[in-house]
Amino acid sequence: MNQSTARKGGDNGQEPKNHILTLPLEDTPVERSPHTHERWLIAKLMRMAGSPPIRFLLWNGDVVEPENQHPEFTLQLMDPKALYTLVANPNLAFGDLYSAGRLRVEGDLSELMEALYRSVHQARQKWPKWLETIWRNHSPRSTGISEAKENIHHHYDLGNEFYQLWLDSAEMQYTCAYYETPNLTLEQAQLAKLEHVCRKLRLKPGMTVVEAGCGWGGLARYMARNYGVKVHAYNISRQQLNYARQEAHKQGLDHLVDYVEDDYRNISGQYDAFVSIGMLEHVGKDNYNALSELIKRSLKSDGIALLHSIGRNRPMLMNAWIEKRIFPGAYPPSIGEFMQICEHGDFSVLDVENLRLHYAQTLSHWMERFNDNEEKISAMYDEHFTRAWRMYLAGSIAAFRAGSLQLFQVVFSHGDNNQLPRNRRDLYDFPCAPEEA
Amino acid sequence: MNQSTARKGGDNGQEPKNHILTLPLEDTPVERSPHTHERWLIAKLMRMAGSPPIRFLLWNGDVVEPENQHPEFTLQLMDPKALYTLVANPNLAFGDLYSAGRLRVEGDLSELMEALYRSVHQARQKWPKWLETIWRNHSPRSTGISEAKENIHHHYDLGNEFYQLWLDSAEMQYTCAYYETPNLTLEQAQLAKLEHVCRKLRLKPGMTVVEAGCGWGGLARYMARNYGVKVHAYNISRQQLNYARQEAHKQGLDHLVDYVEDDYRNISGQYDAFVSIGMLEHVGKDNYNALSELIKRSLKSDGIALLHSIGRNRPMLMNAWIEKRIFPGAYPPSIGEFMQICEHGDFSVLDVENLRLHYAQTLSHWMERFNDNEEKISAMYDEHFTRAWRMYLAGSIAAFRAGSLQLFQVVFSHGDNNQLPRNRRDLYDFPCAPEEA
Repeated sequence: MNQSTARKGGDNGQEPKNHILTLPLEDTPVERSPHTHERWLIAKLMRMAGSPPIRFLLWNGDVVEPENQHPEFTLQLMDPKALYTLVANPNLAFGDLYSAGRLRVEGDLSELMEALYRSVHQARQKWPKWLETIWRNHSPRSTGISEAKENIHHHYDLGNEFYQLWLDSAEMQYTCAYYETPNLTLEQAQLAKLEHVCRKLRLKPGMTVVEAGCGWGGLARYMARNYGVKVHAYNISRQQLNYARQEAHKQGLDHLVDYVEDDYRNISGQYDAFVSIGMLEHVGKDNYNALSELIKRSLKSDGIALLHSIGRNRPMLMNAWIEKRIFPGAYPPSIGEFMQICEHGDFSVLDVENLRLHYAQTLSHWMERFNDNEEKISAMYDEHFTRAWRMYLAGSIAAFRAGSLQLFQVVFSHGDNNQLPRNRRDLYDFPCAPEEA
Repeated sequence: MNQSTARKGGDNGQEPKNHILTLPLEDTPVERSPHTHERWLIAKLMRMAGSPPIRFLLWNGDVVEPENQHPEFTLQLMDPKALYTLVANPNLAFGDLYSAGRLRVEGDLSELMEALYRSVHQARQKWPKWLETIWRNHSPRSTGISEAKENIHHHYDLGNEFYQLWLDSAEMQYTCAYYETPNLTLEQAQLAKLEHVCRKLRLKPGMTVVEAGCGWGGLARYMARNYGVKVHAYNISRQQLNYARQEAHKQGLDHLVDYVEDDYRNISGQYDAFVSIGMLEHVGKDNYNALSELIKRSLKSDGIALLHSIGRNRPMLMNAWIEKRIFPGAYPPSIGEFMQICEHGDFSVLDVENLRLHYAQTLSHWMERFNDNEEKISAMYDEHFTRAWRMYLAGSIAAFRAGSLQLFQVVFSHGDNNQLPRNRRDLYDFPCAPEEA
């Protein structure tokens, strides 16, 4: 993994790494006129992408207007090689070139990306086979126990300091929030999410819960604090666990919450509830059966399980750039693949809720705070890193808004369990979100 | 199809048929002692079935007690051949012998069936291959357009008079009710189901709805009456449609409801909502892609679809007896197979709710009324028919209680539709069920 970009910023005994691959900026400015075949390539590229309303501004100041429509966005190509890189592998190159500053965007980045996603989604159904082949996504990285540690370290150990700049200050939730009403703050919506999850699990004081992939431990603390349950929370990101333990200690929850530094596959014991928020994306399809078997043996006979994960409407590889540069090993399952986890364990699916547009709103809130802290972040890492993360956040907003990504909360139980909630009315008895602080 | 049992009862211009196959009763009583190998067969059969707490009472009065446990139920075998028939193909023979009166049950029939289902579900995981092979379920009947008509006629054209004896008097709903609170009457719970479905579809006055498989037309009338929407409701059962049209006319809903006698595959036009309650079980896996494409072209860009169907936790053939004698062509999809319908059309799954135990309660209400009308029903058909239907209702209660069957309500939209309900709170703003009349 490329670690060429040194971290510049402060430290707290943490050693954040920046694994974003750096494509070099051309070191001499290019001012030559574009060749005819280069203009032809751009026109071809745009047609293959379904003719989105995009104008190209080239290295020498020349402009290529979109065919038959008014441009809504401008893409600036800083050098001719950027064009060739983009055409050869747009999935990967778009993000890399943007991160390197060799492709620039005028207009709202997430709106441009949404327009692109919608347009490509339509267009690719008519792509010739050879184009599918050369532009195809790659296979995601392995998610075996040792690779998982590396994958998770790559992203989640960038430094708590970094994530604190743009995640909610309530519980450091790096997953989809629940905007029960449209004007909630990020903090309210994240607490509403935690409450919504607890209600779906029908927690009662004295119950035991196991959590697979606990992030900074917010859900575990929320459950202990508000529902009086005992939680075993697993994570392999040491930096997150350090934070989680300190917070639990501060809040006097040590007797209820046990943060375990271990792979979820090593969960032992039996619990009233099994919960995992935003980990399934990192599990990998090859491990679904094992996960299913793990839940099967970890859940008491009348227990309830909840998996919350980014997903798809149909099977599709993760965007190559996100998978390579941001989330190694990530794969969001289609709803059908998700259900295979339940089928394998002979579980009964009780409830599926799709919070897709809630994730777009969550990401917009993150992006606002990220942008407010751009200078700090560039000082901690560098501008390449900042651009890459801006692309990741904007692209994710776009993907959820365009329907390329979904957010599924799936509740299930053992197949022969008749101790079930009668219906879902109790989830809505009173608001999940706290009053604004 | 066997139609040997003549209908005896009254008529209303309807021509109900009884298609239940009749196994002959032995015409001479058998009093010989059971052979040793017959007792061995019973013990073997019970062990293969996971040793349920069942005692056998044989034709000559001999008793075979269950091994190592107290019997909770008694099965009476009236003749030796019944034993051989049962051992050769228990899936099919249990229902046939019960219908023929050659296998009798002491104790609650649905409780016996539930104990059997739970016990066999565990045991079959250890069955040797050869046993799986000889006891295997058969393939369901075809559900092409012409066969579908025959399949539906077999069951739904038994006579409105017959179904009126035991379905709710509110809207003749022959699908799972919604027991929002545990003590609802059947009528209240069926109206609550209709209301719950309307809310999930977010109906507003002036919208258009298409319904695939409308039964006696209750949902279409409910929607028109209470939501002021226009409904095109398709069905291929003429008797059901006659009733549906008469009722709509009586209620002055002719301008809003159009009942169409045609296969759902011939639906045309575009609608704000696509709904189908209890038809998917009859569609057949081979037709799922076509159904998906049909919904795709029938649903407006911001429309919502709802499919309500019996389902499974994992793929499994329909019980052979039910499929052969009661519901030709029936196949309840696993949750994963169900999702393939959504994946094929690139739909976004918004909401899945499992109402499994609601169906057990619905069936119990039906069974009570059925039992209260046993004499009338035997007079309309014969006792063989009455026993077969008792077995069907009791077996279905058992299957839902044991977790062999599920009831899924799945809500979905086009994948690129962002005009979605924010969350599900509005479904629970006030009770769905009316006050008791």
